[in-house]
Amino acid sequence: MNFRSEFRIISLSVAILMLLGIKLSGQQALVLQSDFGSKDGAVAAMKGVAVGVSGTLSIHDLTHEIPAYNIWEAAYRLEQTAGYWPSGTVFVSVVDPGVGTDRKSVVLKTKTGHFFVTPDNGTLTLVAASMGIEAVREIDEAINRRKDSEKSYTFHGRDVYAYTGARLAAGVIDFTDVGQLLPAAVVSLPYQAPVLNENKLKGTIPILDVQYGNVWTNIPREMFLALGAMPGEMLNVKILFGKDFKYEGVIPYANTFGEVAIGAPLIYLNSLNNIAIALNQGSFAEKHHIASGAEWYITLEKVKDE
Amino acid sequence: MNFRSEFRIISLSVAILMLLGIKLSGQQALVLQSDFGSKDGAVAAMKGVAVGVSGTLSIHDLTHEIPAYNIWEAAYRLEQTAGYWPSGTVFVSVVDPGVGTDRKSVVLKTKTGHFFVTPDNGTLTLVAASMGIEAVREIDEAINRRKDSEKSYTFHGRDVYAYTGARLAAGVIDFTDVGQLLPAAVVSLPYQAPVLNENKLKGTIPILDVQYGNVWTNIPREMFLALGAMPGEMLNVKILFGKDFKYEGVIPYANTFGEVAIGAPLIYLNSLNNIAIALNQGSFAEKHHIASGAEWYITLEKVKDE
Amino acid sequence: MNFRSEFRIISLSVAILMLLGIKLSGQQALVLQSDFGSKDGAVAAMKGVAVGVSGTLSIHDLTHEIPAYNIWEAAYRLEQTAGYWPSGTVFVSVVDPGVGTDRKSVVLKTKTGHFFVTPDNGTLTLVAASMGIEAVREIDEAINRRKDSEKSYTFHGRDVYAYTGARLAAGVIDFTDVGQLLPAAVVSLPYQAPVLNENKLKGTIPILDVQYGNVWTNIPREMFLALGAMPGEMLNVKILFGKDFKYEGVIPYANTFGEVAIGAPLIYLNSLNNIAIALNQGSFAEKHHIASGAEWYITLEKVKDE
Repeated sequence: MNFRSEFRIISLSVAILMLLGIKLSGQQALVLQSDFGSKDGAVAAMKGVAVGVSGTLSIHDLTHEIPAYNIWEAAYRLEQTAGYWPSGTVFVSVVDPGVGTDRKSVVLKTKTGHFFVTPDNGTLTLVAASMGIEAVREIDEAINRRKDSEKSYTFHGRDVYAYTGARLAAGVIDFTDVGQLLPAAVVSLPYQAPVLNENKLKGTIPILDVQYGNVWTNIPREMFLALGAMPGEMLNVKILFGKDFKYEGVIPYANTFGEVAIGAPLIYLNSLNNIAIALNQGSFAEKHHIASGAEWYITLEKVKDE
Repeated sequence: MNFRSEFRIISLSVAILMLLGIKLSGQQALVLQSDFGSKDGAVAAMKGVAVGVSGTLSIHDLTHEIPAYNIWEAAYRLEQTAGYWPSGTVFVSVVDPGVGTDRKSVVLKTKTGHFFVTPDNGTLTLVAASMGIEAVREIDEAINRRKDSEKSYTFHGRDVYAYTGARLAAGVIDFTDVGQLLPAAVVSLPYQAPVLNENKLKGTIPILDVQYGNVWTNIPREMFLALGAMPGEMLNVKILFGKDFKYEGVIPYANTFGEVAIGAPLIYLNSLNNIAIALNQGSFAEKHHIASGAEWYITLEKVKDE
Repeated sequence: MNFRSEFRIISLSVAILMLLGIKLSGQQALVLQSDFGSKDGAVAAMKGVAVGVSGTLSIHDLTHEIPAYNIWEAAYRLEQTAGYWPSGTVFVSVVDPGVGTDRKSVVLKTKTGHFFVTPDNGTLTLVAASMGIEAVREIDEAINRRKDSEKSYTFHGRDVYAYTGARLAAGVIDFTDVGQLLPAAVVSLPYQAPVLNENKLKGTIPILDVQYGNVWTNIPREMFLALGAMPGEMLNVKILFGKDFKYEGVIPYANTFGEVAIGAPLIYLNSLNNIAIALNQGSFAEKHHIASGAEWYITLEKVKDE
């Protein structure tokens, strides 16, 4: 045997190995979100369906503690986390108060290459805006539906969404196999954009950092920098529910929690690079009875020299 | 080198690759259930033992929020989910009020090819009935026990059940290695079967859909179809705790939640294809103070023409 | 082709396969702990970063239900579980009340070969003591930090700890790549060691078995054996908060819960081989208002013959 044929055989072996490697590494992570909680078997049934599609899938939970039927929070949690997952990751989100109505079952592919499998009921509001819509396809349930599931009226999460998401993540189907192309748009929930106007920032409180009771806003770092507040500087902060004042105070902007006393308030940039309000080692939300949602407003302005 | 020897070498390489592939794909998913909750380290210790058996095991949680010592609910959650997992999946369920007593530690293999590793205390009641008993083996704890665990009196979940389940799922042992064959029977909890009698359905409320407050029954779709109720038709519904009436009303049978007004009740077929009662976007159980268990009864009958 | 060259080719193919195998099996499990809870997206963001490092990582949760800022409990949960995971496992623990202050970000390698990635704020107290310190390195955040994360002030858990832990577990970096070697010591929380003195055992209640309400002590099996109590023997038990008596009673030492009546108390050796107090199928902690922490003491002594 000469070197040339030996080389050919080794090349072939390596090619086979690479194909095997590609097959394994071609799988993408599957990330599940719902309002099902973790007390019953709904999430486990979804995972069983996914494992049935491929036993080597990397399956993860975003959260299953979305408050029941709270589409806004489902949208927010996707936005909060999706960007930290690699391009190609497949998210399945099932918060579906309109199950069985005419909301469409879709897969959104964003310009960043992430996939979102969900009822198109507002869940995609924020990721569509921030990541950009590459394309939206309606799930063809005649094809993309767990076998023998036609008799089950109510569990699209398991029979359509988890099944389709798992097949996408495992590479069993391509995005084009999902179903027909829809117009490049999603159902969007109304929400107020942050504004900077005459040295006054205004925004909403889209969510609380529930574990710690920190108040998160939708006002981004860039807008805050434009206000020109320096670390250590005090700002007037007002929080309203509709037209009712719920909090009014003067709070320092701090780079770190450790810069203020235990129990003292601070303004900081949270892990999403938005403005947030906290108590160092305490719950601002609980102390001042702050909640979140479209009707909660916050304003921040510089303390005027007098 | 001629083509024949080249072919032989490539065949050999492919064979080696296939063996490697079989070894990887021969692993089955391991699914854990318990009443341990997720606040302490018990579940993590079980998973550590499983990962110690094989670092590539696909490990999942059914739930760890079974109410403490509630064997009935453990049985119900297995029944609710196991069928959605592929044949060969290994379930480990540890709800064990009689730990240290003479209940046997067993592995049930069902006719569907699923495995259940658990104390035989009633946990297997429902999966044994629905999936059929292929064989039951008693775990030989002299062999199938985590090394150096002899001094620990109380954590069979980690030292015997998780360890044995992981070794089964990883293919380290076969079912026959578990221990001696027992009679093909399991300890079963009493529960009332559903009946259809003179246009009246009677059944129990084995569980609530806790996240939404929906009331689930054990009356199957087939029995409901035999009653002949059409979508949109109103039915008389009564719910009793023992002999006390807890709810009495007339509720429509609906294909989807969206067919009734928000807050209105409906009868539907749940994800297990059993009859269930819900409020659209509300909690029927909370509104009418309904719980679940062997003493809760429900009847449904057609509204009589008068 | 002669046998020798054929043998050479096959050997080469096998070597390539083994390298592939080593690469896959070289990955270690990654285990995450925090006080973030499971309601928001913090944990999912950490996992996304880890999956971005390697899509085939085996990622698990210890718990994310550590009470907010409770470093003692974080230390306890690591100690409770780490030993059940294989050597080489990488733990990431993020309970970090001093985020942004001058506590160091470190990786501890224990003599047992386990790795712990965490702020050095006391979290390592117990595993350092029980597993031994092999070496401590400070994380060089100039290198070991998620790309583009420099603008985020507050989420070390995701950008430094999860990222570094995942790279260690995946074998992308070695322990030596973490950063400079520190003195072989960690920040330790004060806690009282158990003592046996004149037939009287004294210890603390470092934690409750929260799911069942069992009271766990830090008194080890060996010390209990030295007291010479036999199964079935009654012991005087006192529990104090500071100097206030919270419980005083006579309780039997039992091998199993089943040895006492339902609702009756027992002394047993828990899954960590420490003394614990429970009610059979009840909550001792709830019934007698017992909590855990450094100020809770327990004494046990033999009932004197009179």
